Parts: sequence; structure tokens; C-alpha cells
Amino acid sequence: MAKFLTNRDDNYAQWYNDLVIKADLAENSAVRGCMVIKPYGYAIWEKIQAQLDRMFKATGHVNAYFPLFIPKSFFSREAAHVQGFAKECAVVTHYRLKNDETGRGIVVDPAAKLEEELVIRPTSETIIWNSYKNWIQSYRDLPILINQWANVVRWEMRTRLFLRTAEFLWQEGHTAHSTSEEAIEETERMINVYSDFAENYMALPVIKGSKSENERFAGAIDTYTIEALMQDGKALQAGTSHFLGQNFARAFDVQFTDKTGKLDYVWATSWGLSTRMVGALIMAHSDNHGLVLPPRLAPVQVVIIPIYKTDEQLERITEKVKSIKARLEKAGIFVKYDDRDNNKPGWKFADYELKGVPVRLAMGPRDLENDTIEVARRDTLEKETIKINDLDNHIPVLLEAIQENIFRKALQFRADNTYHTDSWDEFVDIIENRGGFVMAHWDGTTATEEKIKEETKATIRCIPFDTPSEEGKCIYSGKPSPRRVLFARSY
Amino acid sequence: MAKFLTNRDDNYAQWYNDLVIKADLAENSAVRGCMVIKPYGYAIWEKIQAQLDRMFKATGHVNAYFPLFIPKSFFSREAAHVQGFAKECAVVTHYRLKNDETGRGIVVDPAAKLEEELVIRPTSETIIWNSYKNWIQSYRDLPILINQWANVVRWEMRTRLFLRTAEFLWQEGHTAHSTSEEAIEETERMINVYSDFAENYMALPVIKGSKSENERFAGAIDTYTIEALMQDGKALQAGTSHFLGQNFARAFDVQFTDKTGKLDYVWATSWGLSTRMVGALIMAHSDNHGLVLPPRLAPVQVVIIPIYKTDEQLERITEKVKSIKARLEKAGIFVKYDDRDNNKPGWKFADYELKGVPVRLAMGPRDLENDTIEVARRDTLEKETIKINDLDNHIPVLLEAIQENIFRKALQFRADNTYHTDSWDEFVDIIENRGGFVMAHWDGTTATEEKIKEETKATIRCIPFDTPSEEGKCIYSGKPSPRRVLFARSY
Repeated sequence: MAKFLTNRDDNYAQWYNDLVIKADLAENSAVRGCMVIKPYGYAIWEKIQAQLDRMFKATGHVNAYFPLFIPKSFFSREAAHVQGFAKECAVVTHYRLKNDETGRGIVVDPAAKLEEELVIRPTSETIIWNSYKNWIQSYRDLPILINQWANVVRWEMRTRLFLRTAEFLWQEGHTAHSTSEEAIEETERMINVYSDFAENYMALPVIKGSKSENERFAGAIDTYTIEALMQDGKALQAGTSHFLGQNFARAFDVQFTDKTGKLDYVWATSWGLSTRMVGALIMAHSDNHGLVLPPRLAPVQVVIIPIYKTDEQLERITEKVKSIKARLEKAGIFVKYDDRDNNKPGWKFADYELKGVPVRLAMGPRDLENDTIEVARRDTLEKETIKINDLDNHIPVLLEAIQENIFRKALQFRADNTYHTDSWDEFVDIIENRGGFVMAHWDGTTATEEKIKEETKATIRCIPFDTPSEEGKCIYSGKPSPRRVLFARSY
Repeated sequence: MAKFLTNRDDNYAQWYNDLVIKADLAENSAVRGCMVIKPYGYAIWEKIQAQLDRMFKATGHVNAYFPLFIPKSFFSREAAHVQGFAKECAVVTHYRLKNDETGRGIVVDPAAKLEEELVIRPTSETIIWNSYKNWIQSYRDLPILINQWANVVRWEMRTRLFLRTAEFLWQEGHTAHSTSEEAIEETERMINVYSDFAENYMALPVIKGSKSENERFAGAIDTYTIEALMQDGKALQAGTSHFLGQNFARAFDVQFTDKTGKLDYVWATSWGLSTRMVGALIMAHSDNHGLVLPPRLAPVQVVIIPIYKTDEQLERITEKVKSIKARLEKAGIFVKYDDRDNNKPGWKFADYELKGVPVRLAMGPRDLENDTIEVARRDTLEKETIKINDLDNHIPVLLEAIQENIFRKALQFRADNTYHTDSWDEFVDIIENRGGFVMAHWDGTTATEEKIKEETKATIRCIPFDTPSEEGKCIYSGKPSPRRVLFARSY
């Protein structure tokens, strides 16, 4: 166990924070609520970005970039939207600093006050739909399938590295369609892209469903979500896709002429996934030794460490390693050879375990003699010694096996921590004492949802897509319910 | 000639603006000075990013991300730095909006005033060096070689799409070193990376040199620059690399213990290149037909257009094109097949010329019979008909030839528009009437530099690295000068 990490089972929150800091992923900055994403954390985000970007492009989307600033008046146009975000908006009011004449140093120049304040985007629907207005006249201009990689700001009062920060990085898709059906199809397509990404790359099993009215995105008709279970039994919303109906088109007067010559408002979707996913990745798989990264998102997939006493040994090992490394890299594997001489092998072993590198290879003098190499996998911490000749075949298979095992383990954890109950007492007991997902009946009202939240801090994570209809009685009110929904406490 | 473009020779500025708009690269947003980068413009920026990122990583750099916000007090710590940027800072003063009780709608909540104002980063030296302070104790922590891809804001009063906008996208490298020599070496390495990128990818010949004291980055000891000549005879600064000495380390008290145990301040560099480069790309190569994109940065390198009367012809052409496209894509070429039936081939030809696609292939019924295809190159507008069987060999060679030709043409243009003069009258005549680069003697004083700027609007673009010493007399003051420097009017 990494001695400098708080034990995961003693204090999960502190373990998480220790891990983010000690594995050099991120740290708090001098600006309240804003983090510095350090190179290793950013490298994981780059892997996430690259894969998502490929998936977006494969589904017909292109990237573009819209302004950081949103005029305050734009913000006010969609009533639900502004209510949802007004409380957490950073606002630019001036555009110049100056030397204070009375010697107070550098001050904001009161003469440089903006006529209209600018909000730093917390999300870009308004500024984007104001642009789309000029791009769309006819059905021939549709669909518009645009994604943006950007920073956004939401002035959160209680922040946690990656999970909730005042500034975060994300992608936001904003699409425009000529029919409601097509927009709904897009909303579904993108929640499926997110779920595919979460399960196949992040090794994170997710439950897809709709948000209750209360939990919907501000300005949406419907919000689809993917919900994942963390190791402390709390849920994490990992990505959302919104069907916006004609709300933003109405707010910004974006109309188009359809094939029959009739004017109508344009249909919209938006969907986003953020650096929060790095937090999910950490929390879902890691242990008391440190990070456990799924190979498909690991910046370094294989690390090679030489074990030697003499320079001559190191030289001979390095020579062997060079050709091993070159062959693995040719197979598309990210390999690092760590021959720094300022740290002992044991220290390096612990460090790469902390950093979650999926496979560690170690080569010592005896391996040189026997043409062998030690292979250790991060997920199970198992070690074996194999012939160097077998390495080229073994490593790609092993990486896939690790990817699969991490997913399987998370899936098992979720199965072990998902409950079905019809008893309020048991519901409360699970939420309070055990944690996990609870599938329970709900009468469909916001009032009940809020009562449950008040009493247990559990929220409806989603109304899962694939849950069968099942007549029942609301766990709280006893009123009729047509199906179970997913409850949990959440991040 | 594209009829909707202003003639380049009549009004270069208007031609540029028309081109950016008509080729769908960018447009002005509703926020003063901020642009919307449209998908085609952004695709070019993505190509620039991808190549630069590869080059940064190949030279040992890693990416990270620092906050958008800089506390005002950080900004004030380096005296020259704050003087340089204070006049163009967007400032966040509040963190909440609310419903106004008197019915004025959504207003800034006066109760949510920040204790200390936050500046939107115009560049990140201060926030980054404040972080480095905690990362650096010993020479073993050095060097730090970090790059950041980010948006920055400089409140410019007169803006132009891509060339000068209030918000722009860029990369900024920030490195920390244990010796002055190593930092200077890094400063040089990165200006060489920029110049390699400009010449070999953008097909843009550049002159490398140092800025005069007057034109240096605010807070730098030395600024290296690459300067390119645009087709209207004005210079464009395309990238800069700064040796910052110990200025920021002193301002943020960043010291390290060297190998001998002695404490010293850390040495720094920073270097940046922005979306301005998209403007340079447009201005350097394009013509009255539209954009001319160097193949290495063209989002679409080859477009294929079918010419047909009947559906049966289209079907047969499409079948042939499919295999051509697949083979070219396998060779790593970006190919688009445009079989949209809402526009005539002639319209498409003009549109792809406007968009600067390097190679256009057209296939009609006669080509089907003869197993031929028409190949048109954008740079020279030449056409030829070749056998389909020759295409696989021909296209990669042609793309390279186009890349080279665009560079050669720009190089020739620069040679034709670079002057050496020792006469003030001729200097003025060149700057006023002909435009271009002027190599002239200068006495080395800021006073003279400013006088020349006042009288001619020409500035010293750089003191080129590769200019031989040459005794002479300052073109303006007649005082002794050890070498010629590069003058021009500039963007």
C-alpha cells in the first residue's frame, strides 16, 4: 500500500484528494475553485479528447469555436436557462486596468466600464443560437452538427479537484435540425456515443436514462444521462445529452423554411462531457496503491524498469530494452523506459503503481542470462516471468485483458451494490448505511422527489431506458408508479 | 475570378475580409471584437495544432492547463509585464446575476462582488510562475517544459478577423531552467520550431531575428520573432519566443538549490503562436479566386466531383470514385467526394477554388469510357487529364509539388519585395509607395526607432540572426550602425 495515501476504506474523500495530488494529476490554484491540471492529469484528458473527437467526427460532427463571453441580455432570453445558471456566473464589467493616482498600485479603471456586462460562458447555447440565427434560412442549411472544445466557468461554492471546479474543460455539442424526430434521434445518438465511450474506453459501466423534470438541464425538454457508480457507493453523472425542443430557436428567433415553404422554428440538441470524467476514472477503479488506469486511456501503457548494480549491466539491459521498446511501439503501444539513476527500482515500482501504469516490465541480470523479463499487471498486481520472445504477442493481449478485467470488476461492484426495494425503511437503510444504486418505485411528482432528497440526500439519477414497465407503489408516497427509477446519493 | 470577392489588387483589406467570410472561415460575433471560428476555419486551426503539438512533444514538452483567471495582485508583481498588458485587460468583478427587484430583469448582483478582481489571462506567465513556485525546490525539479493550449483575451480596440481579436486561441509554452544558457538554448530551439513549422507546413518563408528593446514582450530580456511578408507588402509577426531571464522567478520568488547547494532564481522562457497564423496563411498565398492552402495544412487535400447527366452515369462514376477514394485515403490523403445533386459542377469548381482545396479531380462520362480523370491544381489552376491507373502515384507527388510551389512563390515574392537602401528618401518611398521589407542601418536607439515609426509607420520587425556585420550609417540619424535591421509596416 502506498504509505502516503489515506486508506480508501477509512476516508474515501481524503483518499481521492491524496491520490489526485500524489499522482500529480492536478492541484488547487491560487484562484478560488480553479485547479491547475498538471501534465499527467492533462495527458489523460488528451486521451479522452482524442477518442471522443474521433467518435464525434465519425458521427458527422465538426468542431468550431464560439466566444468565451456572452452578453448579459442574451442570457436572459430563455427564461428557464437563465434561472438555472444566474447564480453561478462570473461577470466581466471592465476592460482596463490602470495605475492608481493615489498610489494604491494597479486598479480597475472606472472609466473603462462596459455598457453591457459580459458573462463568462457557463455553457454556450445562447451565444451559439444567436450565431445560428444568421446561418439558417432553409431546410437546406440543416442539420448543423457542431461541437466545441472549450473552458467554461460556473461559480461553484464547494469545489473538488476534477469533480466540481469553478472553471473546467469540456466539449459541448450544439446541433440544429428541421424536425423534432431528427433532433431526438441526435440526442439519443450522442448519449449512446457517451455510453460507448464510458464502457469501452473508461471501462466504466453506466446506466442510460432520462432525468426527471427536476434534474433536467435548464432550458431542455428532456435530458438523457449516463450514471456511473463510484466505489464509495455514490453515483456520478458522467455525461448528458439534451433535447432542447424549439426553446432556444424561439428565444433567438431562429426560423427556417421547410420543404413545403412553411416557416418553423428550428429543433435543437446539446450534449457535453467534461474534465469531471477524469475524476470518475480515478474514483471508479483506483485502490490503496494508487491509480488504476484502463489501458485504452493510459498515457503510458507499459513502463520498463532496469534492475542493475553495475554500469555494464545497465548497458546490456538498455540494449535489450531498446529493441523491445521499438517493437512494442511499432505495435501502437505507448512505452516508457525509466533508466533514471536517482531512484531505486522499488521506489519506481511504487511510483508507477501510484500512477496507474497498466503493465510494468522489469529486467535484471538474471533475466539477461535467461532471456526473460518480469511482467506485472497493475489491476491485479500479479507478476510472472516470461520469455522475451513471447513479449510481442503477450503484451497486446495482456492490455486487452486488463481493460476487460477493470470493466468486469466495476460491473461486478455495481451488481453487488444495486438494490431493488419496496420498503421505505430498507431504502433509507441502504442509502444511509450501505450506499449504492437503489431501484425503487416513484409516483412521478417533483414534490415526492424533493421530500426523498430532503430526508435521505438521495436523488433520482435517472429513469433508466431499459427498465421494464412494472406496476408498483411509490416507495415514499405509496401512490401508483408505472416503473422503478434509479436512486442514489451523488457527486 | 470569384465574382463575390473584392479584387485583391484594388483593396487588399476588403479582399481579405471578403475571403474570410465567403470561404466560411470565421465571422464577427455579437460580442465586440470576438470572432466565431466556423468549422472550415477551425479545421485549419486543428491541422496547425496537431502539427505543432507533435513538434512540441518531439522536443520534450508536455501539455498542462492553468486557470483562465489571474488575481489582479499577481499581475502587478512584474512591473514591465503589467505596464504592457494593463490597458487591455478584461476584468471579472462579480460572480452572480440575479432578478432585479424593481423589474429591470437580470442584473449583476452587487452583493456578489469579488474581494479581489480577476483578470482574464492575456498571457499566463504570472499564474504559471505562481504555480511553479511550489513545484521547484532543487535543480532536480528542472527543467520544466510545459505548453498550454488556451484562449486568451486582450481588449483590442481595432480588431480584424484572425489577425487581431479580443479573444483568440493560442498555445503558450512556459519553461523553467537552472541556467541562463539552457534557457537561451530553449528560446532558440522554439523559434526554430516555429520557423520550421512556418516554412515547411504553412509554406511561409520567415526571417528569424531579435526584437528591438522597444518591441520586446513585456517582461522579457530578449524576444525572438519570425517575420513573414504578406502580399500587400506588410509584415506579419508569426510567432515569438521570449528569454525572460529571472524576471518572473524574482517576481514570484521561485528559487532552487543548484548542484553545489547554492540558492538561485530560476531562469525562464515563454513562447506563443496563435490563431493569427490562420490569417497569415490566408494573406500570404491566396488570390482572386479565393484561398490557396498548402496541402500539409489543408483539411481537404483532394476533392472529387462527378460530372453527369443521368443517374446511371452518376452511379457508374460513384463506383469508380469509391475505390479511388479508398486507395488515396489509405495513402494518408484527406479526400472528399462531393456528389451532392443540388449544385452544378461549375458551381462546385468555383466553391472549392474559393476554399483553397489543393487538388480537384473531376470525372465525367468520357472519362468513364477512357479510364481517365481530370486533375486540376489550385495553386496554378492548371488542368490535365491522366489515366486512373496513374493516380495513386501521381497525387502524392502532386501534393508535394504544390506545397513546394506555394513556398517557392512566396519566397520569390519576398525576394522581389526586399530592399536594401542607405538613402532616407528611398526608404520613405519604398515604405510609402511600394511596401515590402527594407534592410537598412539603424543607430540602435529607441529614439530613432520611434521617429522612423512616427514619420513612416514602419517599425523594426527584427534584427535578423543571419545578417552579417556591416559598418554603416543609420538611415535616419546618420550615426554609426554595426548592421542592417529589417524595417516594414506591419499587421
